[in-house]
Amino acid sequence: MAVTATKPSSSAVEEISGEQIHILDAADDAFGGVVVEMKKPINANVFDTSLRKSISHWREQGKKGIWLKLPIELANLVETAVKQGFWYHHAEPTYLMLAYWIPETAHTLPANASHTVGIGALVMNDKREILVVQENNGRFKGTGLWKLPTGTVDTGEDIGEAAIREVKEETGIKAELMELLAVRQSHNLSFGKSDLFFACMLRPLSFDIQKQDSEIAAAKWMPFEEYAAQPYMQKNEHFNYIAKICAAKIENDYTGFCALPATAASSGRRKSCLYFNNQEGLVVPNDISSQ
Amino acid sequence: MAVTATKPSSSAVEEISGEQIHILDAADDAFGGVVVEMKKPINANVFDTSLRKSISHWREQGKKGIWLKLPIELANLVETAVKQGFWYHHAEPTYLMLAYWIPETAHTLPANASHTVGIGALVMNDKREILVVQENNGRFKGTGLWKLPTGTVDTGEDIGEAAIREVKEETGIKAELMELLAVRQSHNLSFGKSDLFFACMLRPLSFDIQKQDSEIAAAKWMPFEEYAAQPYMQKNEHFNYIAKICAAKIENDYTGFCALPATAASSGRRKSCLYFNNQEGLVVPNDISSQ
Repeated sequence: MAVTATKPSSSAVEEISGEQIHILDAADDAFGGVVVEMKKPINANVFDTSLRKSISHWREQGKKGIWLKLPIELANLVETAVKQGFWYHHAEPTYLMLAYWIPETAHTLPANASHTVGIGALVMNDKREILVVQENNGRFKGTGLWKLPTGTVDTGEDIGEAAIREVKEETGIKAELMELLAVRQSHNLSFGKSDLFFACMLRPLSFDIQKQDSEIAAAKWMPFEEYAAQPYMQKNEHFNYIAKICAAKIENDYTGFCALPATAASSGRRKSCLYFNNQEGLVVPNDISSQ
Repeated sequence: MAVTATKPSSSAVEEISGEQIHILDAADDAFGGVVVEMKKPINANVFDTSLRKSISHWREQGKKGIWLKLPIELANLVETAVKQGFWYHHAEPTYLMLAYWIPETAHTLPANASHTVGIGALVMNDKREILVVQENNGRFKGTGLWKLPTGTVDTGEDIGEAAIREVKEETGIKAELMELLAVRQSHNLSFGKSDLFFACMLRPLSFDIQKQDSEIAAAKWMPFEEYAAQPYMQKNEHFNYIAKICAAKIENDYTGFCALPATAASSGRRKSCLYFNNQEGLVVPNDISSQ
């Protein structure tokens, strides 16, 4: 393809292949940087020249970080940006976010999300039986191990909501969150990320199990002692402690963290929930919700 | 550039521009998929044909997910992969991970990291003064608000380690972790991700403040009551509760979660740490470490 750059006069806009070269549209961020969100298709050569001119412009303005968001439809622009010194910051299925740092100093751009988050659900009925499952997939498939329903907390999902959802999906049981019993942090899991796993205590609101066929091989109510006596639970130090914590909870000898969602007035646009030990009655019961 | 595909005989390897077209090197994953890690430069046309042939081959083999890891040096291959139906799974500064799902069903590939993780450190000396700072940047810059040292938990870093590190970096004070007092989950923060913020109690091991000049405008020991009485603390519901929790902790009327790192034998290659309420002495003191 022919590339022609013309500079008819000092004040005129440069052109390539008949397309005008503009400074890219950018919004200021709160940290002295700019955010560029590319939306429309653009010739890669035009983009190359526009990006180069734009970086010079932002450098003159004293800008620091440059964020460049490229939707997956504009994958043809990735190579151009990388050649000009952008690096990958993060990606989601529909876009890639690249970053560039103008000052000579080390960059202070915030890090990408660092943790996956998961839950395990201790759901106990009034016969002191807990809800257990065997899975169709994963490391415990075919081992005969009965385990607590577990799952992933999605972006934007409350820990308690995730526990309630997973129990419902896997076993058909409706439940409500009582407490976070413990949290385990592990490193070097999927793609080198870290993980936070919350052991949650739930109160069942229904009792007839309807297991999900795709993920769950079997589900039942099992006496807690039988669950805790499984050899794997005895062998794995943290599983063993979680079982001890559950046993203490069953005897009313344990206090975890309960949930206090922010009221709309105080949380602003952001949804948030505080989990803490309310044993000494810091908060009156009406303030506390199981979400 | 001229592209010539030749098929000299049925068993021979296809060639483009003199380069042979091979099925891409791939490792099996534990979920019936394959992982392709591109390392060496490759002509984009050769890659296009190789990838197409490889997908057909894996489809015949009944494979499910395909992971394609492209180092940033091979940004020229991103467009090719996207055109063949790959989407972005996640990215780190040095690479982009793309994914493809062969079956007709919805994909079951694990999600990208969903949460950032942060800490706030309550460091109290024996005069019931706590360590507070004013920041050079961020939303509280210039407001006169005295706040707890806060910071980000990096990928691979223990929550307690992060609290100790941030306190040392911002104020020069050495400290050790006592307990996680509370955890707050918030949604829709940086890049739409969720955040987990752990309020940590630390015991100071040194007392002379040497503040970091780049991030910290001022640092001092302040009576806890004065800290908690600041108007912002009163107004923000969660800050107010965290202050109440701290006050209860100071009066020995509160129990958070303490840390039990996994022993090497039980944790295998993965480093992990369990945090729970040890008020009832589930674990003997020797087992507990402040990391």
